[in-house]
Amino acid sequence: HLRMATFGERPDGGVNRQALSYNDGLARVQLKEWAESLGYACSIDAIGNMFVRREGQDPSLPPIITGSHLDSQPAGGKFDGVSGVLAGLEALQALDAADVVTRRAIEVVSWTNEEGSRFAPGVMGSSVFTGQLSMRETLLLKDKDEIQLSDELTKILDMMKATTRREAGFPVAAYIELHIEQGPILESSHSTIGVVTGIQGTQWFEIEVSGAEAHAGTTPSRMRRDAMKIAVAIISELEHRYIDETDSLRFTVGRMSVEPNSPNTVPSKVTFTVDLRHPEASVLAKACDDLRFTCRRFAGSCSVAVRETLKMSPVTFASNLISLLDRAANSLSLRSKHLISGAFHDAKLLAAVCPSAMIFIPCAGGVSHSPAESATASDIAAGTRVLALALAELGNMPPEYFEA
Amino acid sequence: HLRMATFGERPDGGVNRQALSYNDGLARVQLKEWAESLGYACSIDAIGNMFVRREGQDPSLPPIITGSHLDSQPAGGKFDGVSGVLAGLEALQALDAADVVTRRAIEVVSWTNEEGSRFAPGVMGSSVFTGQLSMRETLLLKDKDEIQLSDELTKILDMMKATTRREAGFPVAAYIELHIEQGPILESSHSTIGVVTGIQGTQWFEIEVSGAEAHAGTTPSRMRRDAMKIAVAIISELEHRYIDETDSLRFTVGRMSVEPNSPNTVPSKVTFTVDLRHPEASVLAKACDDLRFTCRRFAGSCSVAVRETLKMSPVTFASNLISLLDRAANSLSLRSKHLISGAFHDAKLLAAVCPSAMIFIPCAGGVSHSPAESATASDIAAGTRVLALALAELGNMPPEYFEA
Repeated sequence: HLRMATFGERPDGGVNRQALSYNDGLARVQLKEWAESLGYACSIDAIGNMFVRREGQDPSLPPIITGSHLDSQPAGGKFDGVSGVLAGLEALQALDAADVVTRRAIEVVSWTNEEGSRFAPGVMGSSVFTGQLSMRETLLLKDKDEIQLSDELTKILDMMKATTRREAGFPVAAYIELHIEQGPILESSHSTIGVVTGIQGTQWFEIEVSGAEAHAGTTPSRMRRDAMKIAVAIISELEHRYIDETDSLRFTVGRMSVEPNSPNTVPSKVTFTVDLRHPEASVLAKACDDLRFTCRRFAGSCSVAVRETLKMSPVTFASNLISLLDRAANSLSLRSKHLISGAFHDAKLLAAVCPSAMIFIPCAGGVSHSPAESATASDIAAGTRVLALALAELGNMPPEYFEA
Repeated sequence: HLRMATFGERPDGGVNRQALSYNDGLARVQLKEWAESLGYACSIDAIGNMFVRREGQDPSLPPIITGSHLDSQPAGGKFDGVSGVLAGLEALQALDAADVVTRRAIEVVSWTNEEGSRFAPGVMGSSVFTGQLSMRETLLLKDKDEIQLSDELTKILDMMKATTRREAGFPVAAYIELHIEQGPILESSHSTIGVVTGIQGTQWFEIEVSGAEAHAGTTPSRMRRDAMKIAVAIISELEHRYIDETDSLRFTVGRMSVEPNSPNTVPSKVTFTVDLRHPEASVLAKACDDLRFTCRRFAGSCSVAVRETLKMSPVTFASNLISLLDRAANSLSLRSKHLISGAFHDAKLLAAVCPSAMIFIPCAGGVSHSPAESATASDIAAGTRVLALALAELGNMPPEYFEA
């Protein structure tokens, strides 16, 4: 971890290793060196996803894959993504050390551009790999400096020249991803292992309230079309509607802009975002309906436009993988807990093509996407042991197990 | 009006004639030319306030003054301020045309820098004139480009070199200012003349709600310290507390900033402004108390800091001047209405040193500080006739009238 964190190290202790940057390239070269020094074959596909393979008895069978991503947010930490890749590599070594033989190969993947902070969208490598994003269109994407993705990708592939090329989207038997929780639940419940049962659905909206600019001193309340007043009324009503005893609905107004944004002028326009998440599609759909209804009902003298900007359905992970992870944690006497992932992950994409699941480990204060991101060595080791056990079992499961 | 609007004309039909700019200088030269061609003496004081004098029978008596200001907002209109200065000049001519003789001189003033948009604070010339702002400190003020006020003022005084210098703060018998309403009340009540009975008090606050940044997807509601949620709760509560049957309390949240302002991050900090105005000091004080109480009461898991950034007490204009303006409007059969000014004016400063009052005329849609600002020629003419009548009467009032 510490060595990997030197690629894109920030003076504040964080990491800036955005996808397809030079530092991303250096991290990949390091991963390859480590893999090959341990005797594993390294390969890379057209979008830059990297695979480290521990061969199985029958190389023709679709492999079990684990891993995550090496890219970071511009002000990221040392653990988001990296933990999953390095835990995978450690797990392979643990299998070696225990002389475990598996019928299927086990591979550790590092997906390209999970974060999407430089080239949007995120979960890019896994989206291309699973056929959910077109390779051709992806190559044409540009960052904010108008640099084309294909040019940056070429540089990365050049840095990895001596690496075997792999076809994108080969068959996979199962996928398990280890990741820091990025939330406070494991820490606050004193659990070491989170067995992730799914990824909640997310819908984003941008809401634009349009009224009329007016002088704060001279315009009586009844003659105003105050965009701030209406925006506040809508958000306030939603706070009440979204009260939820199980505290599983997530409602966030994270961004707001005001025009003209002057202390003595009644705002003519207020634009704000709504981020809504819930594990159940029906509850999420109802929350979205409530949002649209409230925006109509509380528009008052303003006009309110609701624009949907993102829609990701909830994902439920494979129940047999969840049971297997439960058993692995129990057999190691680790305190574990079922969790729903609040954030997106590459596992969401893999779940569309093979049985998938995730292992969460605690992170301090639930903080991530921050230089302050932190996870303990013992929690990472615990997660890695659960992962190694699960991979060893999966590597010898019969084909019908993966079709459940 | 149209000629005056060419100094600092904007392509959008508005005016950018900020105080002490070259265009402000050109406007002053034009005013002086007009005044002298009509036979009036022109003078200027040390802060650049200009006076156009129609002599009275007894030049030793303190004059009656009318006027306003020639400077504009950067995106201002043709009428704010200018109407009051030009109406004054027209009123002098009307007195000439009717062969009116007054004991006291009548002077038209153009106060320096009412707007305060380039050099803050506003109502500068009248503040210095009435001894409420120190000349020495004022000269040291700088604009955002670090240009010192004294340098710009020197250029203006150079442009006006041949103009008689006047001592700042000479005695004034009474002050009447004509101005566009900058609000919608006259227009919506189909009135031509607003007799302004006072200027409401204003208090400004900046409220900073501090919570903690958190991931929108992974942090349950009960574990959040959501600065946006608390800010909305405070504003929403204030909306309810400030409901006022007479609709005379003005409550505006005009500016808001959010950190980190990202759709999928719970805001760690929300800062917003509150502008509160009311004609009665006791009601305004109660509203300010309510604000402080609500910020404490609804802080929840966040900390809330309340900072007072402006406090201006209400002003009540002289009752004998108000009656005189009522009579003048009635005698001209003009539909008039008593109003409280929602905005500040130079008259607020003059009210501290002599009986003062204001005449408002309607402006289209209540719009001002905008290129769209507009007033009709007939409304300006009506206001000017009321002003001329009032000045003629005031010019012959005995000294005790001004001590009431």
